[in-house]
Amino acid sequence: MRVDVFSTHANLVERCVRDRTAIVIDVLRATSCMVTALSNGAREVIPVEDVEEALKMGGRLGRENVLLGGERNALLIPGFDLGNSPLEYSGEKVRGKVIVATTTNGTRAIRRARTSGARRILVGAYLNARAVADRVRDEDEIAIVCSGTAERFSLDDVMAAGSIIAELRELGVKLELDDLGYNALFLYDQYKRHPEDLLLHCGHYRRLVELGFDDLTYCFTQNKLDVVPSYDEDGAIRAH
Amino acid sequence: MRVDVFSTHANLVERCVRDRTAIVIDVLRATSCMVTALSNGAREVIPVEDVEEALKMGGRLGRENVLLGGERNALLIPGFDLGNSPLEYSGEKVRGKVIVATTTNGTRAIRRARTSGARRILVGAYLNARAVADRVRDEDEIAIVCSGTAERFSLDDVMAAGSIIAELRELGVKLELDDLGYNALFLYDQYKRHPEDLLLHCGHYRRLVELGFDDLTYCFTQNKLDVVPSYDEDGAIRAH
Repeated sequence: MRVDVFSTHANLVERCVRDRTAIVIDVLRATSCMVTALSNGAREVIPVEDVEEALKMGGRLGRENVLLGGERNALLIPGFDLGNSPLEYSGEKVRGKVIVATTTNGTRAIRRARTSGARRILVGAYLNARAVADRVRDEDEIAIVCSGTAERFSLDDVMAAGSIIAELRELGVKLELDDLGYNALFLYDQYKRHPEDLLLHCGHYRRLVELGFDDLTYCFTQNKLDVVPSYDEDGAIRAH
Repeated sequence: MRVDVFSTHANLVERCVRDRTAIVIDVLRATSCMVTALSNGAREVIPVEDVEEALKMGGRLGRENVLLGGERNALLIPGFDLGNSPLEYSGEKVRGKVIVATTTNGTRAIRRARTSGARRILVGAYLNARAVADRVRDEDEIAIVCSGTAERFSLDDVMAAGSIIAELRELGVKLELDDLGYNALFLYDQYKRHPEDLLLHCGHYRRLVELGFDDLTYCFTQNKLDVVPSYDEDGAIRAH
């Protein structure tokens, strides 16, 4: 299997995404939230670009059916129901609900994968690395699109890309990795026992630690969840 | 010292380059050629974007004073004097000459650093890692701009960025690295004894091996040369 990895949606190369399955990662914390919400029974997650669009969509779908979630600079958006911590997305809160989610980088990465002509878009995280790998194991070519932080290379997402590649290897898939794919797998192999030793060098992780978030260990728990969300043609993310 | 590293000129963030010294790297092989040529007595290197511009510039400067050098897809350009192998840039050939050089990625990275408002642009390679580090050791903030391959993350350049960061550390500089800076230093530390073990995972390196080039070990010889070329205001690269 050919695997091409991109550190941000901004430097994605379309010919390496077109007609492939693309796995989008924003491990801290948009895709960790999506995987958790759908695992806990949310009906669907609708990613939108900005706050205004989220409020409008919430109104249209009926405020009682919808939870508005997301962040700006890692913080809760005024008027929203949920922030960007997966621990908030409990079954009690999200079961049967539609989540309208807006995040700085994750949403843009998902949409960029779509406009690049990906055949199928899956939502990946450390939490569901094995499940995602299992879903794509028979493909000839895939792309992994990291969201990055502020359009930049971010170690958290690269480490998560490594975890998915490692699970593919574990499944016996013969891998042909691009340069960043090898880099991601190498980092993962060196740091998988203690991801936090790597994450101390990740600017985005350090910022979340400073802000006092207690969900970072959760986000880096590998293979805790089995759900594989996909971004459907109609613009909603669902577990299939 | 704050160090920000970019994997290609395409995903460079201007605010991390503006008013700083930027070190541009295209280790396989444009910047290795430039460092070698100037170390061997070439008067200056003028990087240009395309073949037509190179031929025009050669005519203007007087064909007897000029050597045209560069590559397209790693191969010699018809009508040019020199390819993109540093081993061709011997003292016998280049002493006293002006080299007009056009390469796929290196030239673009240098110009992008200029248009981003870098205060000073230095040319870095594995060959002159220590000399470059020594030149910037007193700065508060620098940027390292890798050229990458076909606008993509390339392990050869990231490894060379790591070598310069390691030399800064060796000089006792207190470092504050961005995510890719840490990644580069980590790769360097793991692979410095046998860079080729890493480079086997680098698509660009493998292509040059397939093409039969015998200069790759040379390009990954650390601290062989002391010259620190800089890209001057008038568009020429000179050793100062």
